[in-house]
Amino acid sequence: MLRIFTTGGTFDKVYFDANSEFQIGDSEIPEMLREANVTFDIAVESVLRKDSLELTDEDRQILYERVAKVPETRVLITHGTDTMVQTAQLLLADERAKLGGKTIVITGAMQPSRMRRSDAMFNLGFAVAAVQVLQAGVYLAMNGRLFDPREARKNVQAHRFEAISRKPG
Amino acid sequence: MLRIFTTGGTFDKVYFDANSEFQIGDSEIPEMLREANVTFDIAVESVLRKDSLELTDEDRQILYERVAKVPETRVLITHGTDTMVQTAQLLLADERAKLGGKTIVITGAMQPSRMRRSDAMFNLGFAVAAVQVLQAGVYLAMNGRLFDPREARKNVQAHRFEAISRKPG
Amino acid sequence: MLRIFTTGGTFDKVYFDANSEFQIGDSEIPEMLREANVTFDIAVESVLRKDSLELTDEDRQILYERVAKVPETRVLITHGTDTMVQTAQLLLADERAKLGGKTIVITGAMQPSRMRRSDAMFNLGFAVAAVQVLQAGVYLAMNGRLFDPREARKNVQAHRFEAISRKPG
Amino acid sequence: MLRIFTTGGTFDKVYFDANSEFQIGDSEIPEMLREANVTFDIAVESVLRKDSLELTDEDRQILYERVAKVPETRVLITHGTDTMVQTAQLLLADERAKLGGKTIVITGAMQPSRMRRSDAMFNLGFAVAAVQVLQAGVYLAMNGRLFDPREARKNVQAHRFEAISRKPG
Repeated sequence: MLRIFTTGGTFDKVYFDANSEFQIGDSEIPEMLREANVTFDIAVESVLRKDSLELTDEDRQILYERVAKVPETRVLITHGTDTMVQTAQLLLADERAKLGGKTIVITGAMQPSRMRRSDAMFNLGFAVAAVQVLQAGVYLAMNGRLFDPREARKNVQAHRFEAISRKPG
Repeated sequence: MLRIFTTGGTFDKVYFDANSEFQIGDSEIPEMLREANVTFDIAVESVLRKDSLELTDEDRQILYERVAKVPETRVLITHGTDTMVQTAQLLLADERAKLGGKTIVITGAMQPSRMRRSDAMFNLGFAVAAVQVLQAGVYLAMNGRLFDPREARKNVQAHRFEAISRKPG
Repeated sequence: MLRIFTTGGTFDKVYFDANSEFQIGDSEIPEMLREANVTFDIAVESVLRKDSLELTDEDRQILYERVAKVPETRVLITHGTDTMVQTAQLLLADERAKLGGKTIVITGAMQPSRMRRSDAMFNLGFAVAAVQVLQAGVYLAMNGRLFDPREARKNVQAHRFEAISRKPG
Repeated sequence: MLRIFTTGGTFDKVYFDANSEFQIGDSEIPEMLREANVTFDIAVESVLRKDSLELTDEDRQILYERVAKVPETRVLITHGTDTMVQTAQLLLADERAKLGGKTIVITGAMQPSRMRRSDAMFNLGFAVAAVQVLQAGVYLAMNGRLFDPREARKNVQAHRFEAISRKPG
């Protein structure tokens, strides 16, 4: 079984007319997996429900604990793009050896999945493949590419992720 | 650069009012890759334009030759689901050693990509990840899973692909 | 209460993978009305389920009888575009005086309502307004316009309806 | 020719990833009219670009002047739903006799037009029909119904418009 954790972010944003705002709603992922005719068991669990800019260290600790605790070795996380790199780096950190044997893929969306045009469905498909095939490690999956979290950043102006050279230690 | 060959099939079906029929149209894939914010070069080429039930041996030979000829070692093929297994097996066959070093992923769609609900975008994302990560070989990518073409079939009644035991040689 | 009769046609076409064809499915109209947040009672009834090119005189007689029989004075009909004019003219014919006091609006779609891009939702909204406001008579509603069935034709090449001068009797 | 004025509101809201917010974008209406295969001339003009809760008296005066000034007698206005009634009542007010001979239909959307599920396309079709058929006056078009602005209100809890009894003068 594949485990998917959702943490909020654009992926699950919906528009609530009552207050004319765009907010985190129930995850669209189960519905998206049905639309994609996915035929194996995937457990989707909402761990956090925030814009990723609002995630605190405590929030990330909660996510880390959930990932460490589940029996599955393959875990997909949907996350807001603004601090996706930061969360991925935390999951990678040395002292967090408990995740060592797991394949963890983090993805997100630039446009909410409920919009007519959105990268969410493509990114979900991409991440579902990547998490099944990749060896243990923590990966970012965006823009049709896989990134090492230590060598990735979001280019906010260009609306995309890009690889950067890792600074020598 | 990733190479994508399209061969027709449901993926690219559109509805033409003029004759009230559903036919193969121009490939939607370049537009889908833009929607997905894919940021690396992908060359999309239309090799065949048929319902996969109408593909002939000559058609498959044309596809094989194109795949063998391109310099890229990673090739994604979109194909109608009805004879996707047959085409994949042909690409796998022993005498076709020319493909030996390539990673070839074949995907399709149960619902045309231009429909409001479709598995096409998920499958395209899935296949774009799989073709980048998998080692050399020929793979079917459908229903969120990867199949060995020698051990896969389309279950027409259930509208999904499933693994079957390979008959001993 | 507004009465809607569906007769098949592109409006309700869906893609069935099992046979790789596009066929008449269950009407999408109830779902479309929910999406449009329509708050008054609308009864949707499937009278015929055919491509409009296949409609026979008997089929049109069935439709006519249903329209004549219902107590509602305002009736919306969805219909394939290819013979929409013909059906409208039949409903208009002199001897069919039983429809005399009713407002009947006929609409259709060039692209199935389940496609990402379709004129179906616009046309449904257009027709729901027209049928509530217009005085008794039979009207075609397509391309954002209202047509007198005696002075309209489908321009198949141009994919649109247009007004024609009525031939003098 | 039909004249459409846009004023902002949910109809034209899009999601900008750069700041993770939902904001007024370029009007989707020209694209929607193309999708609907509308074949007559419609001039779309952006008069205001605000959430309707932020519209000031000055903004409404600007809109009023534009409506009064155009030569067309049939004018469609898209407007945020929260203060749609207020704007309509202003256009109706006695001293504003300059609008007397015009048919003015105001519509909006509960969900942005760019979302997969939205009432925007239905409402646009509904309003395009209503504005062509109705006699001079100011009308609200929402939820598949026409309202007199003096007897309508938005029921925020229920996400719909409803008729109210006009208070005796």
